[in-house]
Amino acid sequence: MTYLESAVPLAPTQPEFELAHRTARLKSSLVRDILAAAAQPGMISFAGGLPAADLMPPLPLEAFANSALHQYGTSEGEPAYRSAVAEWIGSMGLEVSAEQVLALSGSQQGLDFAAKLFIDEDSPVLVEGPTYVAALQVFELFGADIASVPLTAEGPDLAAFEALLATRKPRCVYLIPCFQNPSGTCYSPAARAGIAELLDRYNVPLIEDEPYRSVALDVEHPMTPICALLHRASWIYLGSFSKILWPGLRIAYLAAHPALLPHLVRLKQAADLHTQRPGQAAVAHWLAGGTQASDLGKLCSGYRLRRNAMQAALARHFGDIADWQTPRGGLFFWLRLRGELSATRATLDKALAQGVAFMPGEAFFPDPLQGRQYLRLNYSRSTPEEMERGLATLAACIRGA
Amino acid sequence: MTYLESAVPLAPTQPEFELAHRTARLKSSLVRDILAAAAQPGMISFAGGLPAADLMPPLPLEAFANSALHQYGTSEGEPAYRSAVAEWIGSMGLEVSAEQVLALSGSQQGLDFAAKLFIDEDSPVLVEGPTYVAALQVFELFGADIASVPLTAEGPDLAAFEALLATRKPRCVYLIPCFQNPSGTCYSPAARAGIAELLDRYNVPLIEDEPYRSVALDVEHPMTPICALLHRASWIYLGSFSKILWPGLRIAYLAAHPALLPHLVRLKQAADLHTQRPGQAAVAHWLAGGTQASDLGKLCSGYRLRRNAMQAALARHFGDIADWQTPRGGLFFWLRLRGELSATRATLDKALAQGVAFMPGEAFFPDPLQGRQYLRLNYSRSTPEEMERGLATLAACIRGA
Repeated sequence: MTYLESAVPLAPTQPEFELAHRTARLKSSLVRDILAAAAQPGMISFAGGLPAADLMPPLPLEAFANSALHQYGTSEGEPAYRSAVAEWIGSMGLEVSAEQVLALSGSQQGLDFAAKLFIDEDSPVLVEGPTYVAALQVFELFGADIASVPLTAEGPDLAAFEALLATRKPRCVYLIPCFQNPSGTCYSPAARAGIAELLDRYNVPLIEDEPYRSVALDVEHPMTPICALLHRASWIYLGSFSKILWPGLRIAYLAAHPALLPHLVRLKQAADLHTQRPGQAAVAHWLAGGTQASDLGKLCSGYRLRRNAMQAALARHFGDIADWQTPRGGLFFWLRLRGELSATRATLDKALAQGVAFMPGEAFFPDPLQGRQYLRLNYSRSTPEEMERGLATLAACIRGA
Repeated sequence: MTYLESAVPLAPTQPEFELAHRTARLKSSLVRDILAAAAQPGMISFAGGLPAADLMPPLPLEAFANSALHQYGTSEGEPAYRSAVAEWIGSMGLEVSAEQVLALSGSQQGLDFAAKLFIDEDSPVLVEGPTYVAALQVFELFGADIASVPLTAEGPDLAAFEALLATRKPRCVYLIPCFQNPSGTCYSPAARAGIAELLDRYNVPLIEDEPYRSVALDVEHPMTPICALLHRASWIYLGSFSKILWPGLRIAYLAAHPALLPHLVRLKQAADLHTQRPGQAAVAHWLAGGTQASDLGKLCSGYRLRRNAMQAALARHFGDIADWQTPRGGLFFWLRLRGELSATRATLDKALAQGVAFMPGEAFFPDPLQGRQYLRLNYSRSTPEEMERGLATLAACIRGA
């Protein structure tokens, strides 16, 4: 007898069990589907966002040998890790105390906490259009009514941003100011100052997400965190080591305005008690070790070569059909197709059938129709030869569509 | 200028920012407060539930040296880990496929997912009275309307259980059938069968939480998971390695009815993308290594000695003022005080002032008043001398209250 063929009679008053309403918003992720397809043998994949493991420093195994760290730890995180992270954030221009730092099991967890903290059913939330797919996923799960502000090359359109603050009255704003995923945009100092001034004026909390900050290939101006420019508005700053050190360990952090941190610590306790301790110790060891500058220098040199190879291959195959900014950091190219050309799921199916994976733009907008002309291409995992071959195939698919 | 003294004018339409309604239910945890107090130097603590780190096997460091595991992994978990866990669960009497297993970052995470899956604001939920504090915390966070079924020495009172199913129509039932925290209750085979039959009849999903199953000191009967006895009702089975192997690594799992697993995988992805990979590999290595029986034998022998020492000291100091069952597993004694005696927060404050920490019963009931006569005492972290001295002090505090 299987679960579906049970002969046990149901109580007449309760014929079917009921799930929470939010499960209706728990959609199958386009990204998951694509990544599963992209994992097929022989596929050239520009779809994912995996960092290059060969560019990461070695893992300090002594952190795992310390049996004191095998016992339960505190929800806030390891003291040495919190201190080292506070210093690391300070070096970016955001002064925080170790007590404002909370260890996270990956920065995705910070989005879950932000959603729990700010979002009731139908709460307005403001994001960039386009934005990070898994942020949309978790905000929608909690019932957010999401609006997006258009991005220019310098950051959000400030007039549109103010209009949305005034009319939508968002519970919070979610931004990725450094090498934004997917667009690669790095906000200018003027955009950062303008956003901060508006958030203060309208007193809207900021969730600032910075996974790509350290993958900085050609930086032309300061990248002061917007959180550091706020005087009144509340804020959560999310950072991750997963693009520079061992993403499989799931070690990240948030820092928060002192008024929000006690809530976040309780959410952490309720979510998973605490983050694994040896992984925190390994990252703290790297942060204290004095090899940061050389390790990041090597990592960025490696990424720069790959980015440049991708730029050259794109110029050959997409120069007449798309426009893009060469990304100054992060892991992605973001292309806008010209004229009537589009990169939809149908285009993706065609490309997959020919052995090439990419991410259609529709995944990155609250309203998928806004994404039809766009595609995201990861450059960190392919060889120059794969780029050449894969982009030629992909361009042909798009031209033929 | 501090955050509190800002001179930036607020927009008149939005004077204060707003948090989600659920944050009003994000209470300061009594347990956290007590554990902080219990961590003072010189304190004899019966308050926490830390397993004995000296009884755990050594961590296989080779799992961490494998750099393939430093890259991002899948939300479901490592294939080797899922297979090994499916076999481990099968050995308990619950047959599942590896595809039904989801790696968790600690089994607390399974409670977060269960809450997201089943609980809307005011959804009825049924738990044991008393029950696990952090389950109450996360169910309340999501707005559950929690009712509790009284426990007998054999398990829940079945007549009360059926009445609550019929009248409350709970979205789900949360049970800890093996060496329940805090009561130590181990459900009898008859209670397990009776619960399963009622859950099937009323078609109410079960969340079965089994962190203590392997800390089995004197088992007199089979402990078949109730999930294995269900024919129709849906279920989530939660298990953890944190009481037997390296809790600081945060490696646990759930297995679920096939209809629920896709939802749970998406919730996992939205919560933290995936569980740290080297930790899964380390546990899979232990599960495949052939030392399970001897390692668990040693661990349980160590716990049995401490449990017996605690029983002897309790008999000397609490024999005339309290009643209890000697626990046959798990990490706790659960005492019911006689007559008008109580163990409230005021009693706790007195005991803390004299260097002894314990957990008052009130933390473990949805209605704290039900817990006034009870206290929970952990036996796994104190020496016989500390037990003797600490329990003498605690008994005097309670008699004097």
